[in-house]
Amino acid sequence: MTYKELYNQIKKKRSFLCVGLDSDISKIPDCVKLKFGPENSQYEFNKAIVKATAKYAVAYKINTAFYESEGAQGFEQMTLTVKYIKKYYPEIFVIADAKRGDIGNTAEQYAKAFFEKMNFDAVTLSPYMGADAVMPFLKYKGKWAVILALTSNKSAEDFETLKVCSDPVGETSETEKKHGSDYLFEHVIKESVKWGDKNNIMFVVGATRPEKLAQIRTIAPDSFLLVPGVGAQGGNVNDVATHGMNGSCGLLVNSSRGIIFAGCDKNFAAAAQLQKQRNLRLKCLCL
Amino acid sequence: MTYKELYNQIKKKRSFLCVGLDSDISKIPDCVKLKFGPENSQYEFNKAIVKATAKYAVAYKINTAFYESEGAQGFEQMTLTVKYIKKYYPEIFVIADAKRGDIGNTAEQYAKAFFEKMNFDAVTLSPYMGADAVMPFLKYKGKWAVILALTSNKSAEDFETLKVCSDPVGETSETEKKHGSDYLFEHVIKESVKWGDKNNIMFVVGATRPEKLAQIRTIAPDSFLLVPGVGAQGGNVNDVATHGMNGSCGLLVNSSRGIIFAGCDKNFAAAAQLQKQRNLRLKCLCL
Repeated sequence: MTYKELYNQIKKKRSFLCVGLDSDISKIPDCVKLKFGPENSQYEFNKAIVKATAKYAVAYKINTAFYESEGAQGFEQMTLTVKYIKKYYPEIFVIADAKRGDIGNTAEQYAKAFFEKMNFDAVTLSPYMGADAVMPFLKYKGKWAVILALTSNKSAEDFETLKVCSDPVGETSETEKKHGSDYLFEHVIKESVKWGDKNNIMFVVGATRPEKLAQIRTIAPDSFLLVPGVGAQGGNVNDVATHGMNGSCGLLVNSSRGIIFAGCDKNFAAAAQLQKQRNLRLKCLCL
Repeated sequence: MTYKELYNQIKKKRSFLCVGLDSDISKIPDCVKLKFGPENSQYEFNKAIVKATAKYAVAYKINTAFYESEGAQGFEQMTLTVKYIKKYYPEIFVIADAKRGDIGNTAEQYAKAFFEKMNFDAVTLSPYMGADAVMPFLKYKGKWAVILALTSNKSAEDFETLKVCSDPVGETSETEKKHGSDYLFEHVIKESVKWGDKNNIMFVVGATRPEKLAQIRTIAPDSFLLVPGVGAQGGNVNDVATHGMNGSCGLLVNSSRGIIFAGCDKNFAAAAQLQKQRNLRLKCLCL
């Protein structure tokens, strides 16, 4: 999917929300498991959530961990979910929240897994190992690498917000003395924008740190930002819009648990839809 | 598996080598595919390699990308491989080279996937997101987190070897002025040794940078290091032993492509065994 196609969908739906399909089998309502069997319940649950929310959602983010924890069967449920979305809602952007990151020949295999074997539009990637871990994903036209920059979790402060010296011998340069050095996450963004462009690279920036969004916009003014951390993790969607939006919206704001598990009985899909509409009202204020 | 059990196996086999099962389906000999069908060929290939090398190997490292690229069927082949090794060679340490790294509730699901659903002894993890991404794995007794420190690939220099200031405001402290600041990979090791201990945390250090191993030994003298990059990537096993070995060996040296694809016809397993014995001779010099 192109940058323009994604932006057109955002304009059409007046929405920048992404629904996170963190479909933890232990939280899926019993009625789904009883009707379809536990082995099909992730896929059937996802189908119902997608049907209820596709009118408002511009993206779905599938968290691979919640499927891998069910083994090969879970992997199959994930594969079927992507297939379903791409068949019935081809205009919707589908992200594998996989946070992979490995050397070149391995990254090629992950790209094959997520872009060829399954038909995801994008994959989240960890930048720790550098360009090698990202470049193979950029060879696919119309596909995206979503690089972790500043994440929503507390321990993002362990390494992501360390100050780094771009000079490898570690001496403070005159520029750094004057302006201060970069945080690691800023350096990651500055380096990785060189590997591709706004048409194939996005960044993950947590909603729990909205004050950093404006700062990130000075480095990556045109890039899309995937923003998790709204809802269960405490981030506020209006703060995110205020600090992070650009002329093409430039935001995909994710909510997972707050939407998909809004209801815990047979009305779970309707509850998710209602929750989505509530979120949508917030969004419409911004667009 | 405990630290002591791992060390005992190393002493018994006089070997610190780990065989990487990067079983790229396109490189598996045709005879395997013809006999067992392409859908079973990764598992059958792995079984033959394991049978031929288990006498000499202390660990197997399964690179998840090469299975995920075959979809749910590949995921099943990976699961069966772990089951096979654990059934017939329970003394051998089995690592999921998965390089996962996500927030707490997601990391819990990955731990469930690799330690409960499959019976891996260890998982490789990316430290970018900090302690949250690692802690859930440390709750499992006898299981290990293998944290990326200094990897074997060229673009490890993009971020891993940046100099960092541990002071978050980025000012150079008196200590840093005197001794110089840490590289990011050193800071990762210094921080993460606090999360667990030598009994449940290892570090990945590439064989392509043996000069850094001695330096790492001053920070993590007792930890096991998983060392990829020997063979196809150009690292030298003797250099690794010289700089990285400690009193309990403390090394698992991985070779993947150089061993498992040493032969490309029906004698592929014998070729892998021969290659392993060659490597073993190198190892015996060191133990």
